[in-house]
Amino acid sequence: MYKNAGKQTLIFGNDGDPASAPRITACASIVGPKEGEGPLGRDFDVVSQDIMFGKDTWEKAESEVARQAVEMAANKAGLRLEDIRFVLAGDLLNQCIGSSFGMRAVGRPFFGLFGACSTFGEALVLGAALVDGGWADHVISSASSHFCSAEKTFRFPLELGTQRTPTASWTVTGDGAAVVSAFGDGPRITAATAGKIVDMGIKDVSNMGAAMAPAVADTLTRHFADMNAGPDHYDVIATGDLGRIGKELLIELMFKEGYDLTKNFTDCGVEIYGPEQDAHAGGSGCACAAVTFSGHFYKKLTSGKIGKMLLVPTGALMNQTTAMQGESIPSIAHAVRIEGMQITDNR
Amino acid sequence: MYKNAGKQTLIFGNDGDPASAPRITACASIVGPKEGEGPLGRDFDVVSQDIMFGKDTWEKAESEVARQAVEMAANKAGLRLEDIRFVLAGDLLNQCIGSSFGMRAVGRPFFGLFGACSTFGEALVLGAALVDGGWADHVISSASSHFCSAEKTFRFPLELGTQRTPTASWTVTGDGAAVVSAFGDGPRITAATAGKIVDMGIKDVSNMGAAMAPAVADTLTRHFADMNAGPDHYDVIATGDLGRIGKELLIELMFKEGYDLTKNFTDCGVEIYGPEQDAHAGGSGCACAAVTFSGHFYKKLTSGKIGKMLLVPTGALMNQTTAMQGESIPSIAHAVRIEGMQITDNR
Repeated sequence: MYKNAGKQTLIFGNDGDPASAPRITACASIVGPKEGEGPLGRDFDVVSQDIMFGKDTWEKAESEVARQAVEMAANKAGLRLEDIRFVLAGDLLNQCIGSSFGMRAVGRPFFGLFGACSTFGEALVLGAALVDGGWADHVISSASSHFCSAEKTFRFPLELGTQRTPTASWTVTGDGAAVVSAFGDGPRITAATAGKIVDMGIKDVSNMGAAMAPAVADTLTRHFADMNAGPDHYDVIATGDLGRIGKELLIELMFKEGYDLTKNFTDCGVEIYGPEQDAHAGGSGCACAAVTFSGHFYKKLTSGKIGKMLLVPTGALMNQTTAMQGESIPSIAHAVRIEGMQITDNR
Repeated sequence: MYKNAGKQTLIFGNDGDPASAPRITACASIVGPKEGEGPLGRDFDVVSQDIMFGKDTWEKAESEVARQAVEMAANKAGLRLEDIRFVLAGDLLNQCIGSSFGMRAVGRPFFGLFGACSTFGEALVLGAALVDGGWADHVISSASSHFCSAEKTFRFPLELGTQRTPTASWTVTGDGAAVVSAFGDGPRITAATAGKIVDMGIKDVSNMGAAMAPAVADTLTRHFADMNAGPDHYDVIATGDLGRIGKELLIELMFKEGYDLTKNFTDCGVEIYGPEQDAHAGGSGCACAAVTFSGHFYKKLTSGKIGKMLLVPTGALMNQTTAMQGESIPSIAHAVRIEGMQITDNR
C-alpha cells in the first residue's frame, strides 16, 4: 500500500519526518523590466532592462531566460549542471518551446510539463516526489513565461494595442527555478497535494481568476482535510495567479467550506505588480508563482520571517482554439507545503 | 546518495529485484479508421470508424478518445477511477488541450506532460518512478494524438490538400493508456533511461525522423552503458515514430557507436501502417508509440511471445513558430525497459 493511502496529499520525509524531507537548496529568479519596477523588484536575482534578453524574437527571449534561470539556480546551489539529475520545466507557449529550446544548452535529462500557470507547482510536486523516492540527489523545477509571447499565443497581436478588460491579468516575464535536493540546507518541501482538473463552466478568457478559483478551492479543501489542519496552520498561503478577482472569489468559496482565508492568504499575482502599474487584475503566467516564490517567499523562508507556507500555483488549461469552439476553461491547482529552517513537527 | 548514482538510468524494483518492479496491469488502445485498416488493426481494443469520435471538432474528438482510453484502461485492470492515484498524460496540441479537456471527466489528480511524441515514454518513466517510489498503487500513463488536429497545428489546413513529401509522416489518431501498478499481474517496467534534449541542426519539419534519430542514439547509448548490456539483451527494441528514414539513420548512428541494431529493432511508426496506406515515412504522433505498445507489444509481452523489450518513444520538440523563425528541431527520447511474465535476472 502506498504512502498515505486514501489521501490526495503526498507526505515527504522518511516516516513523515520533515527534517529528512526534500529541501530547496537554492532558487533563481530572473524577470523583465515591469516586474523589476513592481513592489517585489528588489527581491529578484536579475532584473533585465531588456525584455528581449538579447534575442531577436519573444520566443527566443523566453527560452533564454529559462536557460539562464536554470543555470543560475544550479550555480547558486554550488552545483555543476552535471550534478542535476533531472530538469522538470514548462511554460505557456504552444508545444512548450520556451522550455524545450531553453533546455537544449542545459544538457540534462528532461521532463517537459504542461500545467499552464500551475506548472511551477507541478514541477515542485514531481521534483520532490522524485528526490524523496530516492531517484535523484538534485533536480531543478522551473517555469517561465513572457508577456509578449503569451499575448501573441492566447489573445491578440500586441501591435493591435487592444484595450484590456479590468478582469484581465498581465503575464509575468521571467523564470523562477528551484533546486530540490536530498541533502543540504534550505526550506523543506514537507507535503504536496496534486490537483484535479475542475471546470465550473467559466468561458471568459479575460477572467481566468474566476475560472481557477474553484480548482484552488478543491485542492485546498482536500489538503486541509488530508493534513487535518486549517489555514491557520500556515504563516502564508499564496496562490499562483488568481489576481484580485479570483482572490476574492476564493475567500468566498473557502468560507462556504468552513475555512477563513482572510488572515494569511495572498496571491502572487496580486503581490508582483503595484496598483499604478496598470496590470488590472494582477500578474499571471507560469513565471508569476515561480519568480514570486523564488525571489520573494524563498528569502522569507530562509531568513526565518516565514515559518510555514503553502504555495498553490494555479493554471487555466484552455487555448485559443477551445475558446473559439465555445469550450469552458478547465483549471487546476497544486498545493506545495514548504517549511523554513526551524522545522517543528506539529502535524 | 540516490539509487544508481552516476547513471542516467533508473532501475526499478526493491534492490533491483525485477519481480518487485512496477507492472503494467492493463493497457487500452483506441484508434481511428486508418489505423484499424493497417497491419496491427486487429490488435487494438477499439477501432472507431468515425474519426470524429462522435464530436463536432477534431480537438473535441481527441479529448474524447483520450478520456475513453483512460477509463477503459482502469476498467480492464479491474479498477475504479477512484483507485487511480494520478493520471499522467499529454498530447501534441497547443497547451495540451487533448489531455486537459479529456481528463476533466476522469476527475483524478493530474500531471500534464509535454514531450511531443515521446510523451508516452515520459509518462511511463514518471509513472513507474512514482509507483516504485511508494507514491501510488496505481497510476495511468497515457498519450493521444489525432491526424486532423495535428495537421492543423503543425502543418497546413487540411482543406488545402497539400501534397506531402516522401519524408513526411502520418499522425496516428488514437490514444494508448497503461495502468502502472505496485502489485497485480503484468509485464514489469524494470528500468528506464530519461533522455536529454539533442539538437543536431535539422530544420526540415517534414523530416522528423532525421531530427529525432540522434536523440535516440544518445539515449540508447547511455542505456546500454548504464545496463552493461547491448541490443541483443532485448527481444525487441521499438522506437516511437522515427519512420523509415529515421530508422535507417539510427541503425547507422548506432553502428558508429559499436552497436548492431539490425536484428531486433523496429519502429512503431513503421509497424502501424502498411505500404499501401500512403503514409510515406510512417506513423508519428504521441499516439503512435502509445497505441502500438498498448495494442500490439503489450499483448506479445503478456502472451510470452516477447520476453524483454525496450520501448523508446521519440519526440520532436518544435512548433510552427520556431520553424518560421529558422530554428532547428530539438528532440528527445525516453527508453523504457519492459519485461514479460517470466522475469529472469541476468543483469
